Amino acid sequence: MPKKEKGKLRIIPLGGLNEIGKNMTVIEYENDMLIIDCGLGFPDEDMLGVDLVIPDISYLEANKEKIKGLFLTHGHEDHIGAIPYILRDINPPIYGTRLTLGVLKNKLTEHILPYEPQLNCVEAGDTVKVGECSVEFIHVNHSIADACALAITTPRGIVVHSGDFKLDITPIDGEMMNLTRFGELGKKGVLMLMCESTNAERAGITPSERTVGKSLEYIFNTNKDKRIVIATFSSNVHRVQQIIDVSAKHGRKVAVTGRSMLNILGAAVELGYMTVPKGVLVDINDIKRFKPEELTLITTGSQGEPMSALYRMAFSEHSQVTLSRSDLVVLSSSPIPGNEKLIGRIINELTKNGVSVLHDSVVEVHVSGHACREELKLLQALVRPKYFMPIHGEYRHLAANRELALSLGMKESDIFISDIGKVLEIDKNGAKFAGTVPAGRVLVDGYGVGDVGNIVLRDRKHLSQDGLIVVVATLDSSSGLLLSGPDVVSRGFVYVRESEELMEEIRQLAYEAISRSLESGRRVDRMEMKNTLKDELSKYLYAKTKRKPMVLPIIMNM
Amino acid sequence: MPKKEKGKLRIIPLGGLNEIGKNMTVIEYENDMLIIDCGLGFPDEDMLGVDLVIPDISYLEANKEKIKGLFLTHGHEDHIGAIPYILRDINPPIYGTRLTLGVLKNKLTEHILPYEPQLNCVEAGDTVKVGECSVEFIHVNHSIADACALAITTPRGIVVHSGDFKLDITPIDGEMMNLTRFGELGKKGVLMLMCESTNAERAGITPSERTVGKSLEYIFNTNKDKRIVIATFSSNVHRVQQIIDVSAKHGRKVAVTGRSMLNILGAAVELGYMTVPKGVLVDINDIKRFKPEELTLITTGSQGEPMSALYRMAFSEHSQVTLSRSDLVVLSSSPIPGNEKLIGRIINELTKNGVSVLHDSVVEVHVSGHACREELKLLQALVRPKYFMPIHGEYRHLAANRELALSLGMKESDIFISDIGKVLEIDKNGAKFAGTVPAGRVLVDGYGVGDVGNIVLRDRKHLSQDGLIVVVATLDSSSGLLLSGPDVVSRGFVYVRESEELMEEIRQLAYEAISRSLESGRRVDRMEMKNTLKDELSKYLYAKTKRKPMVLPIIMNM
Repeated sequence: MPKKEKGKLRIIPLGGLNEIGKNMTVIEYENDMLIIDCGLGFPDEDMLGVDLVIPDISYLEANKEKIKGLFLTHGHEDHIGAIPYILRDINPPIYGTRLTLGVLKNKLTEHILPYEPQLNCVEAGDTVKVGECSVEFIHVNHSIADACALAITTPRGIVVHSGDFKLDITPIDGEMMNLTRFGELGKKGVLMLMCESTNAERAGITPSERTVGKSLEYIFNTNKDKRIVIATFSSNVHRVQQIIDVSAKHGRKVAVTGRSMLNILGAAVELGYMTVPKGVLVDINDIKRFKPEELTLITTGSQGEPMSALYRMAFSEHSQVTLSRSDLVVLSSSPIPGNEKLIGRIINELTKNGVSVLHDSVVEVHVSGHACREELKLLQALVRPKYFMPIHGEYRHLAANRELALSLGMKESDIFISDIGKVLEIDKNGAKFAGTVPAGRVLVDGYGVGDVGNIVLRDRKHLSQDGLIVVVATLDSSSGLLLSGPDVVSRGFVYVRESEELMEEIRQLAYEAISRSLESGRRVDRMEMKNTLKDELSKYLYAKTKRKPMVLPIIMNM
Repeated sequence: MPKKEKGKLRIIPLGGLNEIGKNMTVIEYENDMLIIDCGLGFPDEDMLGVDLVIPDISYLEANKEKIKGLFLTHGHEDHIGAIPYILRDINPPIYGTRLTLGVLKNKLTEHILPYEPQLNCVEAGDTVKVGECSVEFIHVNHSIADACALAITTPRGIVVHSGDFKLDITPIDGEMMNLTRFGELGKKGVLMLMCESTNAERAGITPSERTVGKSLEYIFNTNKDKRIVIATFSSNVHRVQQIIDVSAKHGRKVAVTGRSMLNILGAAVELGYMTVPKGVLVDINDIKRFKPEELTLITTGSQGEPMSALYRMAFSEHSQVTLSRSDLVVLSSSPIPGNEKLIGRIINELTKNGVSVLHDSVVEVHVSGHACREELKLLQALVRPKYFMPIHGEYRHLAANRELALSLGMKESDIFISDIGKVLEIDKNGAKFAGTVPAGRVLVDGYGVGDVGNIVLRDRKHLSQDGLIVVVATLDSSSGLLLSGPDVVSRGFVYVRESEELMEEIRQLAYEAISRSLESGRRVDRMEMKNTLKDELSKYLYAKTKRKPMVLPIIMNM
């Protein structure tokens, strides 16, 4: 029997908002389609009123029968958050580690799903065989426990996908990232390395999570007279563990507030990812039984999120916690770009109330979960791939990661910066871009998935800038007489009480435009009348106020 | 004749958006009212559609006859930008240094004013006598030339106002900040120091502007094969001077683009604040005559401002400049909080087009214009004031500056963190807060000054989130019959084509609500009918879509 010729391998970043390939990647080999991650993004400031952004999966829907599995690298929102939405349309077997699935299950309970999701628990070191391919989970360090990179073996060769990672030589729990395994794969021969690029502009090595522990120790030692309130990411199980440990060591009780913090803490303790010494945890409702200096509070809100527990504390809206001069608030986080002002608002309010505040620009109370330049180079040097695709980052970060590969001696022609929906095809002749598949962003607003698009967003933007003027008139459709109106109503434009004159001018102008149109003798074209009204009023308003409110003419018939 | 008893001194921060006392301060002694600075702020992200924010000057208008002068510390927008607006209502004598007035004149030409402004040119070292007080201008370093602190001598004592400052021991042009004079005043006895707080959270000393020159030298040496495009703040005359100098040294021609850059460059050269070697400047329209490596371009847009020259270059919309792989773009600036994403967008686009980019997190191409902690302490130690008021900063910065004063041994009761409109009164019994005066923010939107307020902003916010549903119906006012409608029109809510069913449901619901109201037999209260419509439709829409569009019912009469 002649040996079957090897097929094409196709690699497609299918998700991401500004960060290419962040939320979802597809690996295709002949009839096998493997999905890596299924995360969501948070809307840009120009996506007014939008709650979430998920990947457009029409390409997956069109190839349902090929899908062999959804493989999760770790449990962060931007890697698993879109799963409840895509499960309405496809139902692939899902593979992930214990904590990743734990977080996912928590999330799925909030949604009504058409079918039971197929969750398959794996652990680092496991290999899952699907179709002609196999997927190996490899332990990496990250800011959530139980994170993995993936090595996907296809008949065409091995694809290594880094997931989100850092190298932590002294991790809080578990082991250092499995460098050996990456080295073994490199010796065997890796066709393609897809590597995250978040910190590709940052020199050196990301500090160990353990350095945060040292800072906490220092803070607890120098604030023995205060209640210590620490805000951090709820998913950072190791950070929370360190806070609990240092509190216990200093004889403090720990209370937890914030819904997501309570959820994750529950899951992490239940699954054995966190150990709480007996008697240390107290209910937030019972903190009055202790003196301030006997307490640590762990809270959500480290990004300044309005209505988070920390926000409510700062603005005196938290039902159990009132902050005062006897409190120290520690922001164990760094601002996600765009959140600086929200966080600043909280710091200002706390300071105003005499609360002491520490954040990462004052003392090292946070470390990144992503590899810096030297770590990225280390991974690349171990894996020694034939081809390289920087992923997870804005274009500038991908380009910086490419520079690293070049500095390690890779040829520019072997490095591929892709785009959302862009197909990289690898066959016996090598690798090249080969067109695109349907891809993009689907906006979620309330219950609506995908019913808000560019026109709606453009209108929201327009309305947000200068408001709206509605002009209404009723015509007799047979006689063409103006029966009622025009009435003028405005919202978000000017204080109407102080601008009665302007409103009357607009009404008069509208009246004249309608009358002219009716008197012209021709049969009245309502579309034309509306356009005339819109143009004339807009021009007048701009000349008079230098503003461009939306003008919305409504002509009613009787 | 008995000696006249000394009067009260009143100090009132009258401007500022989030930064208290940033844009305007009032010093009052009996019948003398002295204004320091008159700047504008840029709107927060929740001030939708607002262009500028200026101080509410109703307190000044009510005390016109007392105003003795407006004293300008330097020529930045946040210190002089509101002058064209307040000159519509008051016309005080204005005092400032040559460059400050040069920048101001430039600005005033863009406005039609009811009277000729009274501009009085002073230089550092000058003292202006007004009423019972005198104002001395003291040279400081800052990111614009010709900046001054003020020492205001009143019968009650001396008030020192730092303006914006840093200590530059090796400035590009002119002299080091006049530390001696501050020391002399300190020896004489200073009643109150009002000190800026921008960098009060930053340790150490702000580097000299000259360090940027060294970085530029390095960049020019290592990029001899490229055209170098440098974006910076147009008002940073010394930065621009350094770019011109290093270009001339390397035999490059310099072309300038961006309206404000051309304006300031013109004023600075004309007034002698900048020296351009002969033959170095070329018109931007002539750059094609030179090879890329023979050119430096200086441009606006270092904050990522849409439609700035750099933005247009990045997005291939600049008529004279097309960027390519032979270009290096240097962002000689640091992001003003809130602008990170705009700047990131430009860096991404440039990188995509193969343009090399350098910014301040990679190489030291920018230094701050504001004093860090050690400089702030130095000023306080020289001036040794009786009372201290940290100004120019968000609350957290003012509090950090207070910490510095405490560390120098001041008593907490002698330090006053004020607020916009809050009056600090100093008399023979000491200093204490004594009520407030009318103060706040006036929003400028287009030609409108103050006609946009909270209700308008709230409506804009509402419209921006979920759009709008207009419901129109025409009633016969005598018979109470529904003559036409209800018609339903939406904008910014959902794709109407894909939601025809929902629109029809809304129309039906509105019809039923109106009919019910008309059939009730009672005289139809139109207000009540509108409220019913609004409530019922809002509830229905929220249950159905989890969105809250603005519902705008319009009932017309015939």
